Amino acid sequence: MATENVHIKNIGLRGVAVADTKVSFIDGENGILIYRGYRIEELAEQSTFMETAFLLLNGGLPTESELEQFERQVVESRDLPGFVVESLERFPKDADPMDVLQACVPMLGIADPDIYDDSKEANYRKAVRLIARVPALIAAWHRIRNREKPLPPDSALCHAGNFLWQLTGKKPDKEIARDLDVCLILHADHTFNASTFACREVVSTRAHMYAGVSAGVGALSGSLHGGANARVMKMLLQVISELKSADAIGAWVKNRIENGRIIMGMGHAVYKTVDPRAKILKEMSRRLAKKTGHEIWYEFLTRIEEEGHKEFMALNKSSIRTNVDFYSGSVYACMGIPIDIMPPVFAISRIAGWCAHIIEEKFAEAQDKPALYRPEAEYVGHYCGALGCTYEPAADRR
Amino acid sequence: MATENVHIKNIGLRGVAVADTKVSFIDGENGILIYRGYRIEELAEQSTFMETAFLLLNGGLPTESELEQFERQVVESRDLPGFVVESLERFPKDADPMDVLQACVPMLGIADPDIYDDSKEANYRKAVRLIARVPALIAAWHRIRNREKPLPPDSALCHAGNFLWQLTGKKPDKEIARDLDVCLILHADHTFNASTFACREVVSTRAHMYAGVSAGVGALSGSLHGGANARVMKMLLQVISELKSADAIGAWVKNRIENGRIIMGMGHAVYKTVDPRAKILKEMSRRLAKKTGHEIWYEFLTRIEEEGHKEFMALNKSSIRTNVDFYSGSVYACMGIPIDIMPPVFAISRIAGWCAHIIEEKFAEAQDKPALYRPEAEYVGHYCGALGCTYEPAADRR
Repeated sequence: MATENVHIKNIGLRGVAVADTKVSFIDGENGILIYRGYRIEELAEQSTFMETAFLLLNGGLPTESELEQFERQVVESRDLPGFVVESLERFPKDADPMDVLQACVPMLGIADPDIYDDSKEANYRKAVRLIARVPALIAAWHRIRNREKPLPPDSALCHAGNFLWQLTGKKPDKEIARDLDVCLILHADHTFNASTFACREVVSTRAHMYAGVSAGVGALSGSLHGGANARVMKMLLQVISELKSADAIGAWVKNRIENGRIIMGMGHAVYKTVDPRAKILKEMSRRLAKKTGHEIWYEFLTRIEEEGHKEFMALNKSSIRTNVDFYSGSVYACMGIPIDIMPPVFAISRIAGWCAHIIEEKFAEAQDKPALYRPEAEYVGHYCGALGCTYEPAADRR
Repeated sequence: MATENVHIKNIGLRGVAVADTKVSFIDGENGILIYRGYRIEELAEQSTFMETAFLLLNGGLPTESELEQFERQVVESRDLPGFVVESLERFPKDADPMDVLQACVPMLGIADPDIYDDSKEANYRKAVRLIARVPALIAAWHRIRNREKPLPPDSALCHAGNFLWQLTGKKPDKEIARDLDVCLILHADHTFNASTFACREVVSTRAHMYAGVSAGVGALSGSLHGGANARVMKMLLQVISELKSADAIGAWVKNRIENGRIIMGMGHAVYKTVDPRAKILKEMSRRLAKKTGHEIWYEFLTRIEEEGHKEFMALNKSSIRTNVDFYSGSVYACMGIPIDIMPPVFAISRIAGWCAHIIEEKFAEAQDKPALYRPEAEYVGHYCGALGCTYEPAADRR
């Protein structure tokens, strides 16, 4: 344990390794992301979200029968507790889906028979239920706010496909279901990002998994984190409606950067080159834009990327490149996912990583690790010495 | 910004200053706690929770008219949104109050007209509503789970007194109401504890105050944090029922420590001497135990404290002393507060500090501060080099 004080104030813990992890690895210089040893490109091409979730939770890829069992457990856990749906029916219809999700995760906890069993096995069971129910919950809320009945799950569809069905009431095109499944693979984990760190920090007090996940949803709801995909999409639609032609993008980008405003979806705390997930999503965005008649989205996005990169290069900020959020919004929009459901889609994926990290935090091998995260702060406020300031009665204050 | 990596792995950020703060200050060596310049002893003796909450939020003590206005705003904000109460009525009656609180804080957010106004003024208004509604919510849940109707607030009572009234349906004794108000002062802030850090971490993504506070509630629910007061009380009741006589405590303490078990309510991440709050609560515990005929609680607690200190001294661990949780459980029990409502009472108080820290985080003066907390971790997992492990088809895996 540290005995002397370390001062790393006001850097947001950037570049500060606070724990060991076996869940995932990022090489920000070279744009590499690895889950449990496997490159994200390999998983996106060959794996499924169910298999990737198993990998993250268990540390290795499943055998055929392990995968089958895992998928069955998820499918069987999809039904939402009755009181959760009854409560949702009473929520104001304009409630933001991320706020609804943060409220409902502890409710799912209340309904979980394992909530106070903190064994490793019980934590796996909770993880399976969360992976199954977070998408069901988002879909149910979307239906309820539109004054429609939540739909029963369809176990013939893949995890992503079933979500699209429960959300929209339409059986999804197979290619689109697979594309969304790949998006879920790409977003499933990303080391100690703000929401994952929130999950770990909360459960380090021995709070249960649901308490941690609800905190993770809160962090993800921020516009700098999970809210960024929606903000890119809003920016894109605004740029299209303002500029009409992609040829005006160069001037728009220049003007925006000169005015100190950021380009949504460019720049990352860890990557100093193109985010490896963005490369895969860019190709998907191209293909889906064509398939669904939204070529203009892809055209504008690629031009913003090019012009932005050129500007940042000129400013010696060549490390500001497109991140995971830059193309994902347009991909989701092509799938018919509403803008305010885009951050929840991030949660539907990241829940796998959150649960893997929570289990790692709860069962960390480092024996001398203090139980909970408890940083310090430097006091720079009002100070009258150790005796404190004199408390004057209210009548004497001005 | 740090450019080189700092490794402070697996120490739970102990002794690591991660930010500046003007909210509160702890001198752990000397047992000093200061809110905005004022010693906790001074505030406990002369202030009220309402005034202390104002102090924490605003940085200075209020004038008479400022305090009057603040109290009026809190009183006027106490009513719970209808859909929250309707949802609570559908929750399983055995739900833990902390889980209920974590679920309901985002619901209070959904009902807040200022939820998406992130100005400083709007954040103050949200803080006032949270300070008013968290106790109302806990009281409402306690009534509902006992199949009773939530009670309307009584604006003639002080903040703590009104909570006791809404919780129990009895107008509280004046002395007891004042004692609880002092408890609320004592628990209102404590620098970067795990729950406050969770609040700050979550809003650093630009999530709103409710998202942060809900995360704080999650962290507080852990048995090592806000759950500790309830655990001390459970330990006390068990010791009394097992030992019958306080004379057996020496052997019980010795045996417990020798078996590597902790004494609940002893030891702290920051204090290396008696927690200054524990001193005040000890005296209150003595007085209330006598007043309510629970002398045995105080007798057993003081003997556990003495024998524990003796044992830890012998083990050269003299810095393990009683913390805030050691006497607070017995104090709350004397007031008729059920054990599982004790952690929520912590939240009813700490909400003031959480909101002050959230506002500080959102409006930090450090201009070069990166927006969000994003630590790193050292990858110690499976690694096959930058190309990643080979993905074998499921059929080939064993």
